Amino acid sequence: MPSTASKLVSLNLAGSSIDLTRQICDIESVSGNETALADAIEQALVGYAHLEIIRDGDTVVARTNLGRAQRVVIAGHIDTVPLNENLPTRFETIDGVEYLWGRGTVDMKAGVAVQLKLAVELTEPGVDITWMWYDHEEVSGDLNGLGRLAGNRPDLFAGDFAILGEPTNSRVEGGCNGNLRVDVRTVGLRAHSARAWVGENAIHKAAPILGLLAAYQPREVEVEGLVYREGLNAVGISGGVAGNVIPDECIVHVNYRFAPSRNADEAEAHVRELFAGFDVVVVDKAEGARPGLNAPLAQQFLAAVGGEPMPKYGWTDVARFSALGVPAVNYGPGDPLKAHADDERVAVEQITDCEDGLRSWLAASTR
Amino acid sequence: MPSTASKLVSLNLAGSSIDLTRQICDIESVSGNETALADAIEQALVGYAHLEIIRDGDTVVARTNLGRAQRVVIAGHIDTVPLNENLPTRFETIDGVEYLWGRGTVDMKAGVAVQLKLAVELTEPGVDITWMWYDHEEVSGDLNGLGRLAGNRPDLFAGDFAILGEPTNSRVEGGCNGNLRVDVRTVGLRAHSARAWVGENAIHKAAPILGLLAAYQPREVEVEGLVYREGLNAVGISGGVAGNVIPDECIVHVNYRFAPSRNADEAEAHVRELFAGFDVVVVDKAEGARPGLNAPLAQQFLAAVGGEPMPKYGWTDVARFSALGVPAVNYGPGDPLKAHADDERVAVEQITDCEDGLRSWLAASTR
Repeated sequence: MPSTASKLVSLNLAGSSIDLTRQICDIESVSGNETALADAIEQALVGYAHLEIIRDGDTVVARTNLGRAQRVVIAGHIDTVPLNENLPTRFETIDGVEYLWGRGTVDMKAGVAVQLKLAVELTEPGVDITWMWYDHEEVSGDLNGLGRLAGNRPDLFAGDFAILGEPTNSRVEGGCNGNLRVDVRTVGLRAHSARAWVGENAIHKAAPILGLLAAYQPREVEVEGLVYREGLNAVGISGGVAGNVIPDECIVHVNYRFAPSRNADEAEAHVRELFAGFDVVVVDKAEGARPGLNAPLAQQFLAAVGGEPMPKYGWTDVARFSALGVPAVNYGPGDPLKAHADDERVAVEQITDCEDGLRSWLAASTR
Repeated sequence: MPSTASKLVSLNLAGSSIDLTRQICDIESVSGNETALADAIEQALVGYAHLEIIRDGDTVVARTNLGRAQRVVIAGHIDTVPLNENLPTRFETIDGVEYLWGRGTVDMKAGVAVQLKLAVELTEPGVDITWMWYDHEEVSGDLNGLGRLAGNRPDLFAGDFAILGEPTNSRVEGGCNGNLRVDVRTVGLRAHSARAWVGENAIHKAAPILGLLAAYQPREVEVEGLVYREGLNAVGISGGVAGNVIPDECIVHVNYRFAPSRNADEAEAHVRELFAGFDVVVVDKAEGARPGLNAPLAQQFLAAVGGEPMPKYGWTDVARFSALGVPAVNYGPGDPLKAHADDERVAVEQITDCEDGLRSWLAASTR
């Protein structure tokens, strides 16, 4: 529900998308604290006759109902990872490039700002548009606002194509790698370390696990013309009871980022085969998404925004659309390598590039 | 200082050493909580004219001053590791063997009981004797009561031979292995695990460390006729930042138990050579102790108690005597494999065996 008027921050949607990015970033919205920003977005949109507004928790949906032949879903999350003395935003120029610096500028409030600006501006788009601004993307998947909305209002996800505004340097990044996390475990027998031969050292038994990981050659897999780069990595290891005890357990936490040529079950089978003989427990398993660039709308979109499409390496919510049968791509301002960084900053030119790209496609070419 | 009379538990030294073991075990004295037992010991000894009593914290020293040509130090710690529902003690018979069950029965209150009984009984021993019952053996070395006493009263450590009552199945175990603990560390570069090629995986870099440990063949080294078995083991491993981050550090905690043919500096050099190229930081370093069985008193002692001497694998406080130039051996009732075990229990026959062995030597042969 909207807050009382006294708490509400007004957004000015009439200025530039750069200015709007700054306004949105300066409303702190670390995951779990999105209400003020969601209220401000809802309030800013509520007067526009071409938009139907739906609120679900701290997710705001705005959609046109113009009877167009096709519908596009365009989504962005409004939460950020925690601050680290990087708000309020400021402008800075580095090597002649102007940046907006601060938490959320890259991941992904610049994308949200572009979307918001176009949502009110494009009263007669060539396709019907469902805009979604959602909460809780940066935390555990079970809290994800898009996931919650898909449960509460699956009808809102109907569409022929979807665009997620995650940072891509304002280039099109298709699909995403899948994400599997497993614990690979060895078991030994405790003993006093002064009489090690009485026990079995579970950490020593993990030597071949690390050996396999160190020697592993990750694949590069072409899917629908895009080359996805995989990765198989230990992201954690633990073992040990005390400084004088032979350890009876060692757990290697392994993360497999797999190309969308494989589904998650196939990815799991690959990892189980690789670590045959070890105890493997699945901790987390998320499907990837094929790029979907063969869809007619995707082809039109690519033609309108220009540039060569790239694969998306990180897992994103495009996979939710992909799983629903809606082709989806990532397209938003900001360098993904600066996402979550303490010096998170977006080149302001990318914001306007993204705005121009989306506008040119939505306004004209698809009618 | 002794507690008030109302708190004081009286020990009956007139019964059997088995009964006395039980009395002492039932006075709980987990490290840091030894005062009640130290008070009881001091109180039980105070009336004996042949003993000079010295109290230092919760350590009690009792010594004869009979002008004998030689002096023997006989020591035992009075603390235990934490309880695990294994007090009060009880007798139990397993496969026809009678045991006293409970925390401290092995490590090492049966040994203390034998020593206490003989301390009051042997009013005219063949050698002068310095008995030491000390606190804080089962915890960090800087708290060790014997170490504290050596600082406060180094004169009390003068002697020609020392016996530590640690559990040895009532056989003589000479010297002890040294004990070195090091952290072997790898360094990498953090990155998002979806773009692992941007970083360097510190856990993968630890693969050769575990490989070396798994392949290592520990030595067996003869020292003065006893064969010491070494051990080199990972006793802990840690690494990892988050489930989606390439880790930038991995630490393998390594424990080297080395034969007393090497001093601690040589042991460190061996480990540094083995892990050449890795960052190695010494965490803990304790000298071993040569068996010292060539000393004339040691020979007499061996002849009196009988049996073949064995090496001591675990580090014990004999190393403190050894470092002071006093030959020292371990000799006490109880199976060391049951020390610290939840089902800690001592075969009662070993208690009387140890009592008989010590008595026969101290009373007669060395005059």
